[in-house]
Amino acid sequence: MRQLGIRKLGMKKLRNLGVPLTVSSLQQQYRAGELSPQTVVEALIAELKVRGDDGIWIYRLPEDDLRSRARALEKAAEEKTTGQTHPLWGIPFSIKDCIDVAGLPTSAGSPGFVYTATHTNPVVQNLLDAGAILIGKTNLDQFATGLVGIRTGYTVPHNAFSKSHIPGGSSSGSALSVAVGLVSFALGTDTGGSGRVPAGFNNIVGLKPTKGLLSTAHTVEACKTLDCISIFALTAEDTQTIFETAQSYDPTHPFSRPMSEPPPRLGTYQPKQAFRFGVPQPAQREFFGNMDVEGLYERAIATLIEMSGICQEIDYGPFLKANELLFNGPWVAERYASVGSFIEAAPESVFPTTYEILSKAGKITAVEAFEGLYAVEVLKRKSQPLWDEIDFLVVPTTGTIYRIDEVEAEPLRLNANLGYYTNFVNLLDLCAIALPNGFQTNGLPSGITLIAPPHSESYLTKLGMAFRANHRGSAEYRLGATAFALTL
Amino acid sequence: MRQLGIRKLGMKKLRNLGVPLTVSSLQQQYRAGELSPQTVVEALIAELKVRGDDGIWIYRLPEDDLRSRARALEKAAEEKTTGQTHPLWGIPFSIKDCIDVAGLPTSAGSPGFVYTATHTNPVVQNLLDAGAILIGKTNLDQFATGLVGIRTGYTVPHNAFSKSHIPGGSSSGSALSVAVGLVSFALGTDTGGSGRVPAGFNNIVGLKPTKGLLSTAHTVEACKTLDCISIFALTAEDTQTIFETAQSYDPTHPFSRPMSEPPPRLGTYQPKQAFRFGVPQPAQREFFGNMDVEGLYERAIATLIEMSGICQEIDYGPFLKANELLFNGPWVAERYASVGSFIEAAPESVFPTTYEILSKAGKITAVEAFEGLYAVEVLKRKSQPLWDEIDFLVVPTTGTIYRIDEVEAEPLRLNANLGYYTNFVNLLDLCAIALPNGFQTNGLPSGITLIAPPHSESYLTKLGMAFRANHRGSAEYRLGATAFALTL
Repeated sequence: MRQLGIRKLGMKKLRNLGVPLTVSSLQQQYRAGELSPQTVVEALIAELKVRGDDGIWIYRLPEDDLRSRARALEKAAEEKTTGQTHPLWGIPFSIKDCIDVAGLPTSAGSPGFVYTATHTNPVVQNLLDAGAILIGKTNLDQFATGLVGIRTGYTVPHNAFSKSHIPGGSSSGSALSVAVGLVSFALGTDTGGSGRVPAGFNNIVGLKPTKGLLSTAHTVEACKTLDCISIFALTAEDTQTIFETAQSYDPTHPFSRPMSEPPPRLGTYQPKQAFRFGVPQPAQREFFGNMDVEGLYERAIATLIEMSGICQEIDYGPFLKANELLFNGPWVAERYASVGSFIEAAPESVFPTTYEILSKAGKITAVEAFEGLYAVEVLKRKSQPLWDEIDFLVVPTTGTIYRIDEVEAEPLRLNANLGYYTNFVNLLDLCAIALPNGFQTNGLPSGITLIAPPHSESYLTKLGMAFRANHRGSAEYRLGATAFALTL
Repeated sequence: MRQLGIRKLGMKKLRNLGVPLTVSSLQQQYRAGELSPQTVVEALIAELKVRGDDGIWIYRLPEDDLRSRARALEKAAEEKTTGQTHPLWGIPFSIKDCIDVAGLPTSAGSPGFVYTATHTNPVVQNLLDAGAILIGKTNLDQFATGLVGIRTGYTVPHNAFSKSHIPGGSSSGSALSVAVGLVSFALGTDTGGSGRVPAGFNNIVGLKPTKGLLSTAHTVEACKTLDCISIFALTAEDTQTIFETAQSYDPTHPFSRPMSEPPPRLGTYQPKQAFRFGVPQPAQREFFGNMDVEGLYERAIATLIEMSGICQEIDYGPFLKANELLFNGPWVAERYASVGSFIEAAPESVFPTTYEILSKAGKITAVEAFEGLYAVEVLKRKSQPLWDEIDFLVVPTTGTIYRIDEVEAEPLRLNANLGYYTNFVNLLDLCAIALPNGFQTNGLPSGITLIAPPHSESYLTKLGMAFRANHRGSAEYRLGATAFALTL
């Protein structure tokens, strides 16, 4: 694998700081004494002021709180050595506003829903304990329901590369905060693609770990049996660093599970190691007419083959059936179990499309719920032998992207199109990483997603790093929408 | 452990054969040339004729078919050696009539429901492939719904020790066919206790293996996510032999799982090995006024302590909550998913109590189903630490037994009482063995059940054998209701 460096692009989007906010860059600057948490925080405060209400944030920590957090971290570092004990010392991050932090408001994207949280989600706590600096809580498709990122009761965010295009969702604000260089990483959530689609739409990396490894305790749940906390960062390497720090078994949460149950099928990817990957048969690929994304996807396959990958066309049919189950099956009743009483009591507080989706869910029967559970077990069983034939599946993150006005005109159908390559992943207990895959001719980014059996995080992130280093077809190694790019 | 022998009691209930039908007895006789499959089949045919319609059977194989099966087995043995390749050569068995055998009728206890099966359940196929002789299909609580054994559209069976008492269910006929000595073993099913309660009521052993190890493909399902196939036999040793032969991973069935997922927590029990067992706190024990069963249970605890067991009183509360969930929660909708369309189309074919239970199930919502699933995960998590403290839990199989007329007068309440120590087991993914535990003063049997984490079959059966050998308190080692008893 070639060594990756970082170069500064002509733009000067990120003010004051001479480096991108990747974890390794910041740590290097901290160690060299070039930057300190206080200088970073001041730069971010200035940048946030200039940007104003761009739809990324629902709640930001008061400037004084950010400053005192940075001072406290520096004081702690003076008193004892940093490093191992504080692996994210001084690293700024954001979290999707359906994740609780004790004492802060949680809105789940609905101003009428806001409550002050009494507990801090354990993943956030692990990150804070590791020295990370929470900047604020980010916008989302209300109740994490949607893949578009614009179903919000707050300012509607737009794509980091285009004011007229959707940012993708539901974790829109989290992905954007990383893409525009306001934080080093962000937590999203992912039930049917919410941690991958906005990564693809904003040229960043989105790691959707194995279900249960990052505790979803103290979140506004979408589907309790499917929800994952996801990680956005500028590089795959950073997602792995964050994941390792964020992870811990949570015995208090019924859906938390230990790192090694079941044992991982894949070890750690080693550069130049051969691998086998699956792609949907050409007739089962869907780009909704977007030939740019199709071409970029084919170029990604070519790169993977050059990296000693053996490509195998697989039957995507079972995955499409699982998508259909998630979209039209009983799981929407889990969303109703989570927020149904609120939406019935205050329908005026609910985004109209979201209300339309959720209000029907109370009528689904238990018989239908169990039949859905049976169907997903059948699909799990049917797709099982595939994972003996391939190490991972490679799909476009989405087949295309839409303008905001297009989605407003056809909110349900276009949203469903965006889940074509994402919906099934949690239902079938898989893990995934969304990677940047170059740019369309209109300047908008495109992405691919690698999907593998549970506990493949380490393999996928390392392969993701190698992919980016080897992907010569892509002229652009830009980090998100920031003023920095990787160099070879 | 003392060696167990067998002695003949004064009675002469089983005609023509001088030995009990335990697998080891029959195999010994076969090896010695004292008996042959044909002589056994003839003796059973004669016995079945004398008994007439005793409510045990719903369908029996024609006499000529039994004779030709026995002849074919003998012919096969002449042509090649038996033994390893046919571990159940010439061993007679029965199956509950909700389990399919291709070409035979399946009734699930309802004459109006009968269909001719097109497939054979894989467990039955494994047993037939091992040389076992299927005698027939047995009576049950209709649609395996009930623990009493008398909710049937066929002749109502009674307890093997009392014409006025219930046999227990839902696998009533299967347990009775073993207890009265008509077969060596029988398959039942067990969702909330159906493979344990009738074992306890008829003085035999009932092994309820880990969910998913014995494929439930081609059965009339009660609750697809909970159903197990269970094994009745005269001794714990036999249940283990049958289990090992019956087990195979069934990749076609979504709820089948391999033997070792998750890996077993307990190894194999070795005689005189120390162990830790839990018992409900005295205030949480429930015998419904039956002091005989209470005394017998306490004597069993004393025996286990003598066997180097360390007894620990545990909080039975989480298990009672799980019972409540099974009984009043959404799982009844699984029964409706299985047979709902039949009961709606032909309510006159349905036993009134069964109709009353099932007909309400269509109205349960998906939200309630998911909330039930969440609740059970919470209980699983809460009870998890217990299994680090104890190796297994010891409970009475039931707190008491009822007369048939008592159950007819209060069918729902008394049935619920019988599940006090059984309902939670599959919901919490545990395995269990019901063991004979001596007799009440009224001559009716009593039982205990050992419950442990998944994949503890080998441990539980071996400990069950040791318990029976050490249980000096019990004056009676009778095998079921047969004319034979174990000797020490």
